[in-house]
Amino acid sequence: MMARAFQPIGRRRLIGGITGTAAYAASKAAFASNDTLPSWNEGASKQSILDFVKRVTESGGNDFVPAEQRIATFDNDGTLWSEQPVYFQVAFALDRVRAMAKQHPEWKTQEPFKTVLSGDPHALAKLSEKQLLLIVAATHSGMTVEQFRQTVLDWVATARNPRFKRPYTDLVFQPMLELLAYLRGNGFRTFIVSGGGIEFMRPWVDKVYGIPPEQVVGSSGETKYQVVKGTPELIKLPKVEFIDDGPGKPVAINRFIGLRPILAFGNSDGDQQMLEWTAGGKGTSLMGLIHHTDAVREWAYDRKSSVGKLDKAWDEAARRGWLVVDMKRDWKVIYPFET
Amino acid sequence: MMARAFQPIGRRRLIGGITGTAAYAASKAAFASNDTLPSWNEGASKQSILDFVKRVTESGGNDFVPAEQRIATFDNDGTLWSEQPVYFQVAFALDRVRAMAKQHPEWKTQEPFKTVLSGDPHALAKLSEKQLLLIVAATHSGMTVEQFRQTVLDWVATARNPRFKRPYTDLVFQPMLELLAYLRGNGFRTFIVSGGGIEFMRPWVDKVYGIPPEQVVGSSGETKYQVVKGTPELIKLPKVEFIDDGPGKPVAINRFIGLRPILAFGNSDGDQQMLEWTAGGKGTSLMGLIHHTDAVREWAYDRKSSVGKLDKAWDEAARRGWLVVDMKRDWKVIYPFET
Repeated sequence: MMARAFQPIGRRRLIGGITGTAAYAASKAAFASNDTLPSWNEGASKQSILDFVKRVTESGGNDFVPAEQRIATFDNDGTLWSEQPVYFQVAFALDRVRAMAKQHPEWKTQEPFKTVLSGDPHALAKLSEKQLLLIVAATHSGMTVEQFRQTVLDWVATARNPRFKRPYTDLVFQPMLELLAYLRGNGFRTFIVSGGGIEFMRPWVDKVYGIPPEQVVGSSGETKYQVVKGTPELIKLPKVEFIDDGPGKPVAINRFIGLRPILAFGNSDGDQQMLEWTAGGKGTSLMGLIHHTDAVREWAYDRKSSVGKLDKAWDEAARRGWLVVDMKRDWKVIYPFET
Repeated sequence: MMARAFQPIGRRRLIGGITGTAAYAASKAAFASNDTLPSWNEGASKQSILDFVKRVTESGGNDFVPAEQRIATFDNDGTLWSEQPVYFQVAFALDRVRAMAKQHPEWKTQEPFKTVLSGDPHALAKLSEKQLLLIVAATHSGMTVEQFRQTVLDWVATARNPRFKRPYTDLVFQPMLELLAYLRGNGFRTFIVSGGGIEFMRPWVDKVYGIPPEQVVGSSGETKYQVVKGTPELIKLPKVEFIDDGPGKPVAINRFIGLRPILAFGNSDGDQQMLEWTAGGKGTSLMGLIHHTDAVREWAYDRKSSVGKLDKAWDEAARRGWLVVDMKRDWKVIYPFET
């Protein structure tokens, strides 16, 4: 795995071939048709999005927002793609432990790696957040940023989600792809603002969501610049630099974008401050939460979920009249492969 | 000054009215004409830029670079606008000390503020880097990010450079405005990667350079998110978060952009690693240094300058054949107001 992972050839097109481009193309085709947001059922949710976009783009209207200020931010896990039963980046990190085990014989007896290598699903499910962070640090450092990028691309091309037996990047939400394209078609710049790792997302989001790497904001580890035998390198260090979650989201939006969004979508308590910050702007804004209500087609969870807990943000949405998208009710299809 | 500075009305257009839009419009008009880069004299420098852009954009050619990878990064101080005799952000900070003095009676006896308020140019010139950082911290914190933005816009609209008696944003380089527009016209995304403060640049660079806030990378202070009486705020703290200089530039390019540039321009030793990192990419790249050689029209300085020192990077440019732009020889005009 390591040898393949670090092949110097560009394997980016693999993602496109297998899954990404297809999904993105589907959403572009949908946008080109007369039916705007075709995977959204008619109803209050769809209507409130259409109304908002009309208001802020109607030249001369009271709510008009100049194009340069049309910033839209989206959480990723649970908002643009699924996140159950574990964040997909955790699935990646666990796969990396297995792939790197040969170079780390000490992991056979060292926790939390020993548990990962045991393959015991009950023990795996009990790993603490601190242990998961150790696993992420060990598998996301000690290589150049290019080597890590290649590892992510290889995983995206080969790993399969256990429930759907498909690449993880197939599990993006078709209605959200349509929303992203619809907003861009109306002069918005669309950003991801995720608690996930910035360098885990950037290699594939352009093909899958149509969002270029510089429009991805996320959690990050430190990197070190060095020149080795005349070759400059950026090495990933096992040290957290920034956690882009909760109050970190408005901080990161200010740092990376420098403008306040007028539209923001999330799905969990970690998105509450991003939506609050967006709502605090002077003009019209749209705040949305994706509520996971469809156990048959996707997953159903909210207040008590250990992953993607939607509790305080849900109460705030109800109190302030934010849009709550009910997946089961509002979405005609969930994934691009259903279309 | 404070009262005016924090007026809630949008005064952004003021910049456009006075200087910015005019400069940017001039460069757009230049691009639209048949004469590419009209403010550049014919010669090796201009030719190497034209050749590079032709090579990377020629479909089917050996050096072709897909549009999504055409990333160009520019230092700001000394590369896109002047920086003598002090960085313009330092001039801003000193003006802020004077404007804020009434609210800080203790500054009359407290260094380094006492020296700033004395107005003695000899003492001012002797302020150490550490003292200047103290001044920047005191004048760039304790307010919301929106209040700071407004203060910057007010200063840009009203302050005058002592030598040219003009707004500081008039002192941008016309040939570089043309280069930015020319690159964008050829599918490049143009970024600023500056040692200057990110929040000092973002309020005006869109109007002046045609570069939106999210394409500005710079040094930054920490901010804190808080909700006061239901209103969310981001407060600027007097604590340095990141210095975007030297080896910090490739680190920041990776963090903010996530792609390696194929073109980079700087003018001082602080840009060496950015150019080195750009040169280390796999395909064709163009690395350029602006050499300040024109004491009559601008300033002349290099190896021994305390501001914008060009010493090690100059040697590396000579050794590796990087482009060194000689302002006196290569530029027909320096500033937009000369055209």
